[in-house]
Amino acid sequence: MSQKVLDYLQTNRDHLLEKLTKFLSIPSVSTDRNYQEQVREAGQFIVTYLNEIGFDKVELQETKKHPIVYAEYNQAGPKAPTVLFYGHYDVQPADPLEEWDSEPFQPELRNGRIYARGASDDKGQVFMHLAVFEAFMKTEGKIPLNVKLCIEGEEEIGSENLHQILHEKKEQFAADFVVISDTGMVQDNQPTIIYGLKGSTGFEITVNGPNRDLHSGMYGGAVRNPIMALAHILTSIKNEDEVITVDGFYDGAEQLSEKERELIGKVEGEDYVTSTGVPATTPEKGYTAEEHTMARPTFEVNGIYGGYQGEGTKTIIPSSATAKITCRLVPGQDPEKIQQLMEEHIHKVAPTGVTVEVKKEEFSAKAYKVEPNHELILQAAESYKKAFGKDVVYARMGGSIPVVEWLDAIYNIPIVLLGFSTPEDRLHSPNESFPLNSFDKGMETIVYYWDSFRN
Amino acid sequence: MSQKVLDYLQTNRDHLLEKLTKFLSIPSVSTDRNYQEQVREAGQFIVTYLNEIGFDKVELQETKKHPIVYAEYNQAGPKAPTVLFYGHYDVQPADPLEEWDSEPFQPELRNGRIYARGASDDKGQVFMHLAVFEAFMKTEGKIPLNVKLCIEGEEEIGSENLHQILHEKKEQFAADFVVISDTGMVQDNQPTIIYGLKGSTGFEITVNGPNRDLHSGMYGGAVRNPIMALAHILTSIKNEDEVITVDGFYDGAEQLSEKERELIGKVEGEDYVTSTGVPATTPEKGYTAEEHTMARPTFEVNGIYGGYQGEGTKTIIPSSATAKITCRLVPGQDPEKIQQLMEEHIHKVAPTGVTVEVKKEEFSAKAYKVEPNHELILQAAESYKKAFGKDVVYARMGGSIPVVEWLDAIYNIPIVLLGFSTPEDRLHSPNESFPLNSFDKGMETIVYYWDSFRN
Repeated sequence: MSQKVLDYLQTNRDHLLEKLTKFLSIPSVSTDRNYQEQVREAGQFIVTYLNEIGFDKVELQETKKHPIVYAEYNQAGPKAPTVLFYGHYDVQPADPLEEWDSEPFQPELRNGRIYARGASDDKGQVFMHLAVFEAFMKTEGKIPLNVKLCIEGEEEIGSENLHQILHEKKEQFAADFVVISDTGMVQDNQPTIIYGLKGSTGFEITVNGPNRDLHSGMYGGAVRNPIMALAHILTSIKNEDEVITVDGFYDGAEQLSEKERELIGKVEGEDYVTSTGVPATTPEKGYTAEEHTMARPTFEVNGIYGGYQGEGTKTIIPSSATAKITCRLVPGQDPEKIQQLMEEHIHKVAPTGVTVEVKKEEFSAKAYKVEPNHELILQAAESYKKAFGKDVVYARMGGSIPVVEWLDAIYNIPIVLLGFSTPEDRLHSPNESFPLNSFDKGMETIVYYWDSFRN
Repeated sequence: MSQKVLDYLQTNRDHLLEKLTKFLSIPSVSTDRNYQEQVREAGQFIVTYLNEIGFDKVELQETKKHPIVYAEYNQAGPKAPTVLFYGHYDVQPADPLEEWDSEPFQPELRNGRIYARGASDDKGQVFMHLAVFEAFMKTEGKIPLNVKLCIEGEEEIGSENLHQILHEKKEQFAADFVVISDTGMVQDNQPTIIYGLKGSTGFEITVNGPNRDLHSGMYGGAVRNPIMALAHILTSIKNEDEVITVDGFYDGAEQLSEKERELIGKVEGEDYVTSTGVPATTPEKGYTAEEHTMARPTFEVNGIYGGYQGEGTKTIIPSSATAKITCRLVPGQDPEKIQQLMEEHIHKVAPTGVTVEVKKEEFSAKAYKVEPNHELILQAAESYKKAFGKDVVYARMGGSIPVVEWLDAIYNIPIVLLGFSTPEDRLHSPNESFPLNSFDKGMETIVYYWDSFRN
């Protein structure tokens, strides 16, 4: 048992929080060219830390944009397993700045939380792992298993370079399993095993009508309105019961088993009505909101535009209208097949008098799911329970993490999502924060988890 | 017969075109504060001209914005009828300037047309009337009927001040009938009696969902997408046969008689497919495109917006979506009743999980129609025929002219639309022009028309 390791973390808590504060103070906004130097600085911060801890090999690998921190710890010996730990040190922009109650890059402790951009997503969670490695090395002189670290600086902008490097350096990143701490728990202090993620694919529908905006009086009645044509196409894809009515869309999609419905039923998650202000939830007919978000595919219009959007009126029939769409997919659904079915459907139902273009998004991801009874998952569940004093709940996530799909496709090894964020963390929004409860118990969980690999 | 009057117009053609060129050179853009002086200058141009012609009373009436030219000619005696002539001397902005082949305010004659902003709408047509008045006075020393002139400078910005003044000075503007030359012919050289205009009313639908844009993965399946809700509302209002499916919408709407269908059938108008580039016209089931544009009500979405409109993707469920709408109405439909029916329908069909707001536009207009067999219309048809050597066609117009509705409501007197523009005139667009054929034969028509009132 790693009591010494736990004691170390407790004794050095103030010091660690100070160090985390320094890390969070670096505005590593990957999307903004003005922060290029600071993004690198955040990567360098980790490199320095890993060298202090005593990793065997520590590199800042250059890419076409922001560098990847790569490191290895090989002292656990050839019999010990090797984990690939993935995380990211870049953050979302902080705008709108005026909505922050404290400066986004001057971390502040209040209400039992640490407030800063990146506190939860993902610098805070990455830091916890580094602190745990430090604790193991400083107390026991070694970490219970071999480690490969991959902490990138482009997660918030699509991880394009990592995608390429993973394929190029397949051997270098190879491991027995993967651990990622970039997800959350369904509630504060409710340890959660995320055992599945949705896939995703997108496309854009543009309906073209007349070659210019037309006078709605002179041409209304002669020419099809592209906005109306688009509305007819959209409503032909998903009905008011939130059922997708495109032929073949659900073919092969893994059905929710009774066992899983039971697991999901145990999740006391977010109260959507309270947290989003909608009058009621509207899941697919026959499913609860939790079941639909976690385990049923979705079709969402992310944006729509066409014609006049200014003040007052402009009496036109617009020349075109566009909708931007994303589908979230479940295991058994192939993103490219879905794009193709959608495209065929759209052309089939397109009304006369207009032409319709479907632009398929290049990037797609398949859904990911791991068996909740997998040994590595059970070990994680046990570690969570010891740290939080509470049984885990099992959940799937409506979102997609591209790197999970890639690692799954390349290595086909288990991926353990050991996340500690909470629904109140306001990821990507003003006043992002991370609960100190997650910070403390999360590190404890990680200690127990690594400990379970001790020979 | 006014042969002398016609001869005068022919003899002085070059001089008149020169004078028109001066009038068109004044950039009387009413919407742009920078042109305030020039708008006034255009009004003053008419005042000077009317004084030269010998009108009895000529005034530049001040309003809160641009002045109205008001004038009277009373020498036809108490037995002669009095016509109220309405027109406007303000013009639309000329932007985008780079799309003009010649300067918008340096009129140029080419291809049998005069190119300039306002050449057709409406300075060119107003000028023709002034020239005809001049010709009558210079040759016969009198005009065959009494005239009141109202030429405003705010038509392109909604005629707000005229609306107020018409109500305040009801007596001053009173006449036996009205003549307006601010409309067109269905084809170049095809004299056209416009005997009806559509009414119009508008509103805006806003669907509100969550209190912020939500992550489409985390919340897709729990929360109704406002764009989809809006699409369902829109398609519940008008189906793919272009039939409006709101209860009571067509109640009381004047049906197209066989006689009118016959009249409309004779119109060889615009080839919509060629001129607008659409694959096919899509009129209401059971009607031709001409019948629908002229004489059936319409429901057009002028603009729509919601969510992300930028490059690439942003995987959100937007917090709201909005559609801007205009309906064109036919005789027998009350704009306020239509707004009310629409509002009730929208709230009735609004899906669960969202709230819906309907913002009714303040300005509405009823449709206008005059009996095509009215004596004043028959006289106009005869005048057209004599000038153009061709039978008139009878058409109704899909557009609305607010001042027609107001004059109809205040005075309930016949309104004769004596228009000479053609579908190629590009009103409100770059390269506006007016055919010299319309200029010459139009003035001839006006001479014959006034002549028909001679005692």
